[in-house]
Amino acid sequence: MQAEIITIGDELLIGQVIDTNSAFIAKHLNKIGISVYQITSVQDDKVHILKALKDAESNVDIIILTGGLGPTKDDITKKTIAEYFNDTLVQDISVLENIESIWKQYVRQTLLQVNKDQALVPSKATVLMNTVGTAPGMWLEKEDKTFISLPGVPFEMKALITNSVIPKLKDKYHCPFILHKTLLVYGLGESTLAARIETWEDALPEHIKLAYLPSLGKMRLRLSSKGFDRKKVEEEVQQQIDKVLPLIKKEFFGYEDEDGNEETVIANQLTKIGKSLAIAESCTGGKLAQLFTTHSGASQYLKGGVVTYSTQSKIDVLNIPKDVIDANSVVSAQVAEAMAQNVLKLYKSDIAVSTTGNAGPTKGDSNAEVGTVFIAIATKIGVYSEEFNFGNNRARVINKAVNKALEMLQKEIFKNR
Amino acid sequence: MQAEIITIGDELLIGQVIDTNSAFIAKHLNKIGISVYQITSVQDDKVHILKALKDAESNVDIIILTGGLGPTKDDITKKTIAEYFNDTLVQDISVLENIESIWKQYVRQTLLQVNKDQALVPSKATVLMNTVGTAPGMWLEKEDKTFISLPGVPFEMKALITNSVIPKLKDKYHCPFILHKTLLVYGLGESTLAARIETWEDALPEHIKLAYLPSLGKMRLRLSSKGFDRKKVEEEVQQQIDKVLPLIKKEFFGYEDEDGNEETVIANQLTKIGKSLAIAESCTGGKLAQLFTTHSGASQYLKGGVVTYSTQSKIDVLNIPKDVIDANSVVSAQVAEAMAQNVLKLYKSDIAVSTTGNAGPTKGDSNAEVGTVFIAIATKIGVYSEEFNFGNNRARVINKAVNKALEMLQKEIFKNR
Repeated sequence: MQAEIITIGDELLIGQVIDTNSAFIAKHLNKIGISVYQITSVQDDKVHILKALKDAESNVDIIILTGGLGPTKDDITKKTIAEYFNDTLVQDISVLENIESIWKQYVRQTLLQVNKDQALVPSKATVLMNTVGTAPGMWLEKEDKTFISLPGVPFEMKALITNSVIPKLKDKYHCPFILHKTLLVYGLGESTLAARIETWEDALPEHIKLAYLPSLGKMRLRLSSKGFDRKKVEEEVQQQIDKVLPLIKKEFFGYEDEDGNEETVIANQLTKIGKSLAIAESCTGGKLAQLFTTHSGASQYLKGGVVTYSTQSKIDVLNIPKDVIDANSVVSAQVAEAMAQNVLKLYKSDIAVSTTGNAGPTKGDSNAEVGTVFIAIATKIGVYSEEFNFGNNRARVINKAVNKALEMLQKEIFKNR
Repeated sequence: MQAEIITIGDELLIGQVIDTNSAFIAKHLNKIGISVYQITSVQDDKVHILKALKDAESNVDIIILTGGLGPTKDDITKKTIAEYFNDTLVQDISVLENIESIWKQYVRQTLLQVNKDQALVPSKATVLMNTVGTAPGMWLEKEDKTFISLPGVPFEMKALITNSVIPKLKDKYHCPFILHKTLLVYGLGESTLAARIETWEDALPEHIKLAYLPSLGKMRLRLSSKGFDRKKVEEEVQQQIDKVLPLIKKEFFGYEDEDGNEETVIANQLTKIGKSLAIAESCTGGKLAQLFTTHSGASQYLKGGVVTYSTQSKIDVLNIPKDVIDANSVVSAQVAEAMAQNVLKLYKSDIAVSTTGNAGPTKGDSNAEVGTVFIAIATKIGVYSEEFNFGNNRARVINKAVNKALEMLQKEIFKNR
């Protein structure tokens, strides 16, 4: 069973908005055994949308569209779908009621005709009720093909995918089970890793696919398989993992979670062992704290953090002695370690991580080369740090520092497992 | 002149990786007057890649591919391009030298055959030297069409786009100037805004396109035009802006910067007026600080921030009196205002913003409903706060709180302009 995702909107084609909808939809289709054959982004243009629909219909079984369902004049998806199905738009009473109810509860302004028009749907469509917005989802069938149109607002699209689309697709199609297991591997380049596991890779059964996903500071090794017998699929993949693990014993650091977030591996372990975390950030500027607090349950282990961006704030907020800074430079092992130790005390946490460095593009309050970053880990029994140079691209320096800090945290909290 | 972007990689089709390359490429093509007709993501599959190339060739002038150029077995783009061009792969000496040099400088391990093989390119291709990685870019021509193949690693792709692809495309094609101007509008829903400016919108010249881009807490109104006479294009768009601004006088808050970042509007203004900022975050967990520190020059105005996530840390780190918390709840106007005032003092800044709220999914240390957020602004002459309810989706609550905090900051620093 194969699907194509068509995302509609000029903002995608001029690069103003990154298409995050497709990855979300693809992930959820995959979970119920539907492969995504292609993702296509097209403009708010009738001729182009009609062509994309026709191409998709000839390639796949399920076509999911997002975008172009808003109340304004640039939103033409609904009219275009009606044309594709030789259909007309009719008012759906339940959708109109939903719009009126949302308007009454949240907007509290006069309901305009353009808003009422959002209740117009192709007569052949089954409405997928959007309980968190005014643009309805639509489900249409043409012979054995299914067409699903969803709003482009990520929040509304996600609710519809989870609550309506996935359950309905599961009902309609008999799908195989798809399994992806992703191993996190630190400290090996792509080709070195490939050479190390070559014999194992060459002996992989045809139906188990392997992919190397390089990322700043780490490699992800993804095994994928599918079949109708879930237990068999899981066992076969596990057998291969059992064979490869001894080859990367030192470099393997666990499995990536479903959403690809490494910080949740750390969060889960901290919660499990009942330890708390505090964070002192200079060059990473709050990005580490933000990563952890994105996920619910952070209050189980995260005491908090400081972003001591200016040199003076390291003195005022973290009580780093001015002479330590003067003697060693603000980008130094001594300052990183003092930051970690002092934030540990300030927040009364069990473990702390700190970053100080120069992300560039120009030198700041220190003489350190652009790209130099010190990362320290403090616990109640000690402190240590490492020095890195992450190059001269600001965004890359910050991201690499965040990844390396996560790696050092992960090593620390897993070292006694 | 039209282009298609083809991104290659199973990781995109299973939703493991979000395609950020396309938006970057599209934005840069747009700047030199090349429109993107379509973005297509396909699997690491020869037949599919060949089909995508053929489709693109029939639709557009320029085809840009990313991905599938790594050293491992799942990377098949290069072989597939050679097949499409009835070509063979030959070793390029300059690429081999580049690989050896990178290896010597950064990897310091034995150069393997798979790495040397990265120097193989189709004989008809012009090499685009990748100075920051081992996979070369490739430029091929077929009659009047141009095919460009780039590595999928964003950092390497970006360097090649900026340093090689854009200059070469500018040389080859005579392109029109494309202009997008995006107005930030707060406090009006999409349809209310549309009704307000309807007469103006209906009178827009045919060649000036208007788009409504709703985002949490704000609307973006984008005007687009193109032409060979840059001055004329700019003047025409400006005339339309001059006409619409009086209609949204109270709600208009400036232009979005090129990368769509609102925080840079604030950053530039703070730098300009010589005021400094400090941030105290609870429910936004570091996201506000991180937004500002993403951009270079943050040290010009940002003193730093605290992430006082736990209730105890609000007492320990920000000196919020325990009885204020007990009397009002940790999610309250009083606590938000005390956080802003105290972080202002702690960091000796001119202005401070704070957030405290419950992002959910469960109630935390307060009885506040999930979604309740208080945001406060403190200056040396006073403090004020507002209460919001941002619904019950954690990610959405955090993002809305961040947007609202930016809006309040923006209002504060622009109010005396």
